[in-house]
Amino acid sequence: MTKVTLIGAGNVASHLFTALSSKDDIEIVQCYNRKGIALATGSYATHCVITDLNQLLPSDVFIVAVSDDAIAEVTAQIPAGDHFVVHTSGSVSIDSIDNKHRKGVFYPLQSFSKHKEITFSDVPFCLEAEHQKDYDLLSAMAKTLSKKVYKISSEQRSTLHVAAVFANNFSNFMFTIANELCTANDIPFEILHPLITETAEKVLTLSPEKSQTGPAIRKDSETIRRHLEQISNLQYKEIYKIITEAIQDTYGKEL
Amino acid sequence: MTKVTLIGAGNVASHLFTALSSKDDIEIVQCYNRKGIALATGSYATHCVITDLNQLLPSDVFIVAVSDDAIAEVTAQIPAGDHFVVHTSGSVSIDSIDNKHRKGVFYPLQSFSKHKEITFSDVPFCLEAEHQKDYDLLSAMAKTLSKKVYKISSEQRSTLHVAAVFANNFSNFMFTIANELCTANDIPFEILHPLITETAEKVLTLSPEKSQTGPAIRKDSETIRRHLEQISNLQYKEIYKIITEAIQDTYGKEL
Ligand SMILES: NC(=O)c1ccc[n+]([C@@H]2O[C@H](COP(=O)([O-])OP(=O)(O)OC[C@H]3O[C@@H](n4cnc5c(N)ncnc54)[C@H](OP(=O)(O)O)[C@@H]3O)[C@@H](O)[C@H]2O)c1
Ligand SMILES: NC(=O)c1ccc[n+]([C@@H]2O[C@H](COP(=O)([O-])OP(=O)(O)OC[C@H]3O[C@@H](n4cnc5c(N)ncnc54)[C@H](OP(=O)(O)O)[C@@H]3O)[C@@H](O)[C@H]2O)c1
Repeated sequence: MTKVTLIGAGNVASHLFTALSSKDDIEIVQCYNRKGIALATGSYATHCVITDLNQLLPSDVFIVAVSDDAIAEVTAQIPAGDHFVVHTSGSVSIDSIDNKHRKGVFYPLQSFSKHKEITFSDVPFCLEAEHQKDYDLLSAMAKTLSKKVYKISSEQRSTLHVAAVFANNFSNFMFTIANELCTANDIPFEILHPLITETAEKVLTLSPEKSQTGPAIRKDSETIRRHLEQISNLQYKEIYKIITEAIQDTYGKEL
Repeated sequence: MTKVTLIGAGNVASHLFTALSSKDDIEIVQCYNRKGIALATGSYATHCVITDLNQLLPSDVFIVAVSDDAIAEVTAQIPAGDHFVVHTSGSVSIDSIDNKHRKGVFYPLQSFSKHKEITFSDVPFCLEAEHQKDYDLLSAMAKTLSKKVYKISSEQRSTLHVAAVFANNFSNFMFTIANELCTANDIPFEILHPLITETAEKVLTLSPEKSQTGPAIRKDSETIRRHLEQISNLQYKEIYKIITEAIQDTYGKEL
């Protein structure tokens, strides 16, 4: 039985509470947050909440799921006592955890929203710990939740975070531009839904390199010229140009 | 019974042959292509092939699924005879079809590859015709294949094509950059697969505007600075900067 304490009451803490509390070999000892919020409905979720870090009971791991810039401060407030303390952030180094603790990272690489259910079995967990026995504990806990468990150093994790910005935030912004172009021309954006689904599905089996199509990689300069003429927003025009150039430079090497 | 003639032997013509030939109310009269290629296995697919446009039999619609820049030439080669001739291109105007024909467009907005099966029932068909009765024929034919049939003018279609470049080609290139960053740091790209799936799924229910997250929209300048430091490829750095600025300008208005 692994004893877990959850610190924080946001998206990640709430989803972790629900997922971990259903596991037989995990016991949630306490949940701390400064407002005394219960992480779920039900009497246990209500009873285990504390608002004072001095009331913390012994636990095998303290999972600190608070905003990135509060990690240093909150872990400093946890009293000393040979605790194993992990954060859940993709972009914060393991070193931000206060030095009086054994440190680790338990980063679920997925985009969580409060009211959207998450299928944890598909969420990749990126783990790191200073000591092997602590890593083993994290790994066992992650494996009760998910099929996908990876050992990832702080340095790798910070690259992974940049990669996630491109794969998630920036691709979503490409959809935003597409949406705006459609709306401005009375075209329902839903026409593009199946193409978006196919684009994402393709990279799961083929690499994104092999999936690349379109006027840029074909070096179809006449179509590129017409497209640029059609884009009135100067920033979007610039984005079209620079991505087209990058595609041509990337694939130019090989053609 | 609608009589259909297919012209061309590429991805689109082959997929259309397979989809249309299974429909009870559609008869494929002939398939033309200059190399005499059968569009599928089976004896009918072999027997209906011709390599001389002067042998064309009467048909309700001639679907010209050839490369964009061959549409004008190939439709000019089709002998006169009050034919209804459509092309399947997203980026070519209806006007490129030779003037001696009744013109139309039968554009399936999806990315086709030779060896990947397509579920036609989900493919949006964007239709256009000069005459209402021709439009009705296209619409009835599209509806035997798909639930999603749209009337789209040549002008709208050319915008849609730009939008599709952002939604498909450019989002795929964001995955390519993510992949390169991962590979260069010994991180398996598959860690990002669930995030990519979630990104695409989200815009089907929420708008891309509402799905936008990340350091750019949060105006988290410290994280942005660190990310830029980590990207060594100058073009990718530039793409990171310009998309970040565009996200901030787009959402800055509303914040
Ligand atoms: N959301 C995601 O998609 C996602 C995915 C993977 C990893 N993460 C990481 O998981 C962590 C939590 O993210 P989240 O999305 O759950 O955040 P969130 O929903 O914004 O919640 C943040 C939590 O941190 C608490 N907090 C902030 N400052 C605090 C302080 N000084 N002292 C005590 N508590 C403080 C907040 O408490 P109050 O309500 O009292 O302010 C709140 O409970 C972050 O490190 C994030 O990078 C997030
Ligand atoms: N692929 C897609 O994802 C997709 C999606 C929607 C719409 N479209 C549109 O559908 C059309 C066909 O695309 P595709 O992907 O099927 O193309 P493709 O696989 O490249 O095949 C092109 C076909 O056009 C023929 N062709 C080219 N020039 C010709 C000429 N001068 N005379 C006679 N035949 C000629 C080729 O014949 P040879 O083998 O003899 O050269 C080949 O059969 C294009 O307008 C395209 O924009 C494509």
